[in-house]
Amino acid sequence: MAETSKDFLVGVDLGGTKILAGVFDDKLNCLGRSKMSTKSQRGPEAVIDRVARCVQDAIDECDLLPKQVRGVGIGAPGASDPETGRVIFAPNLVWEDVPLKKDLEKLIQIPVFVENDCNVQTLGVYERELKGKPRHMVGIFLGTGIGAGLIFDGELFSGFNRSAGEIGHMVLEVGGPKCGCGNRGCFEALASRTAIFRRIQAGVKDGQKTVLTEMLGGDLEDMRSGDLRKALRRGDKFVEKVIEEAAEYTGIAVANIINLINPEVVVLGGGVIDALEDEMLAIIVETAHDYAMQGTDKGIAIIASKLGDDAGITGGAVLAKRGTK
Amino acid sequence: MAETSKDFLVGVDLGGTKILAGVFDDKLNCLGRSKMSTKSQRGPEAVIDRVARCVQDAIDECDLLPKQVRGVGIGAPGASDPETGRVIFAPNLVWEDVPLKKDLEKLIQIPVFVENDCNVQTLGVYERELKGKPRHMVGIFLGTGIGAGLIFDGELFSGFNRSAGEIGHMVLEVGGPKCGCGNRGCFEALASRTAIFRRIQAGVKDGQKTVLTEMLGGDLEDMRSGDLRKALRRGDKFVEKVIEEAAEYTGIAVANIINLINPEVVVLGGGVIDALEDEMLAIIVETAHDYAMQGTDKGIAIIASKLGDDAGITGGAVLAKRGTK
Repeated sequence: MAETSKDFLVGVDLGGTKILAGVFDDKLNCLGRSKMSTKSQRGPEAVIDRVARCVQDAIDECDLLPKQVRGVGIGAPGASDPETGRVIFAPNLVWEDVPLKKDLEKLIQIPVFVENDCNVQTLGVYERELKGKPRHMVGIFLGTGIGAGLIFDGELFSGFNRSAGEIGHMVLEVGGPKCGCGNRGCFEALASRTAIFRRIQAGVKDGQKTVLTEMLGGDLEDMRSGDLRKALRRGDKFVEKVIEEAAEYTGIAVANIINLINPEVVVLGGGVIDALEDEMLAIIVETAHDYAMQGTDKGIAIIASKLGDDAGITGGAVLAKRGTK
Repeated sequence: MAETSKDFLVGVDLGGTKILAGVFDDKLNCLGRSKMSTKSQRGPEAVIDRVARCVQDAIDECDLLPKQVRGVGIGAPGASDPETGRVIFAPNLVWEDVPLKKDLEKLIQIPVFVENDCNVQTLGVYERELKGKPRHMVGIFLGTGIGAGLIFDGELFSGFNRSAGEIGHMVLEVGGPKCGCGNRGCFEALASRTAIFRRIQAGVKDGQKTVLTEMLGGDLEDMRSGDLRKALRRGDKFVEKVIEEAAEYTGIAVANIINLINPEVVVLGGGVIDALEDEMLAIIVETAHDYAMQGTDKGIAIIASKLGDDAGITGGAVLAKRGTK
């Protein structure tokens, strides 16, 4: 029987606030999911225990048994060493040198593969959406922060300290707005959800009119990317200007990537793009072509991922698939 | 006899104003050189003829015969396709799609290998100075313009349109000074020799005092990088400030590379660094570490090449050596 052979893969997206697990078949179709809060304040051991439960729940949800799963691939929010399966440094989880692979394998008895979360999302987009076709690809993910994954010759590239792809801290505007990293003018300080919200809040303080204050109250608490989309559809000029600027900065970052790395495809994803693709993508593409050197951008595709929240779990499944080949 | 076997390599640095050729043994020692003006206004055919003569002169200078040369490697100032040996686009030479390999092989009857000039210089530094040891390396060259070469897993990386490494047009300061490419705030518009000279000339117009006007006259004609070094050694505060700023921008560009690509070694070269290493390198290194994300720069070396003008011909010899292996 096919069901008793090891035909399935599990992908896990380990985030600062939630854990997502998905069960996939060999063709990367998602058969079922499970979700759990991370509770990082309880420490690595408790979090790894929750990851194990989330994986087991997802497998059970699909009426499968752990022995039918060939491998589990996890994207962790920080620098990770795929060879040892250790998370070197994950500020959102307050983790330093955590043996995620070893500890999780002890709990679930399935081979575990660990990578940086943006690398895993990039891998998911590459295999599921692009069918592994481009030789070189860069995935850029705009959410609370901004990160990227690099694929060269079909393989993830993570560099000397396993930290390649930290595009969020590429300086685009020397002396620009302060970034969480302590520097100024980083891409993340100009175009992440955090940066967009900060600009809107500062504008409101300065007396800018926006429908967001009607929708959410004057302090704009609990603002989400989806609220921005609603405001734009109601013709909010101020929000439109802020989003346009963020899209322009993103286009310049994409041009920097095209000039420097010259990949065949640049894919944009993450919560900001998922919510605002219609408003941002055309501006990003136009700006990127404006700023790319003549001839360097010929034939290069700049597109938005359709995977949304599934990019991480899909990429985790790809990681497990590649690892167990 | 060893001399009659094909033991030698020729490297050629084809620039907008001059052609340099060097003969190398298999251990990359330079045995002799030859130099000629490019005369690009005479068109590709005439330039390729001059390259052939320059190669033949260098071989003759070393008391060798063309049949003792295994291969000729050329760095061309533009995007080049190493597979076809065509120069796709070289603005300084006003070349578009020139079959350099084919035409030169006809003239000299030696296998020819063509690459972008910054890639070739990077290859020279990688093999001759770093002994091919780092896995990933980036070479950044500051001269009239700014360019880079990328080595991943020991091999040159040139991307989809063969134009990877266009770091000169990485935007560092949105809305910053105008660049030759038409955009604003490119690295090249902030830290190339052209940018440094422009700042000094603008400062003098605005009444800034500098010993350069005593040295060169009020219009600062014929200013060279070496003049800046002389001015600095005479305690010129204005020139010091301009050079410091250029070094800071360069440090930020290096940090962007470390964050994004995370190579093991970043090597700086080109005329500006050759002339001003003592004044710039420490500032570049300090700024790069300041702007690199925590943990990403650990163990990464940021150094200056000692090859100077020989980087291009040395890299050409490496290209020929790799091509004829």
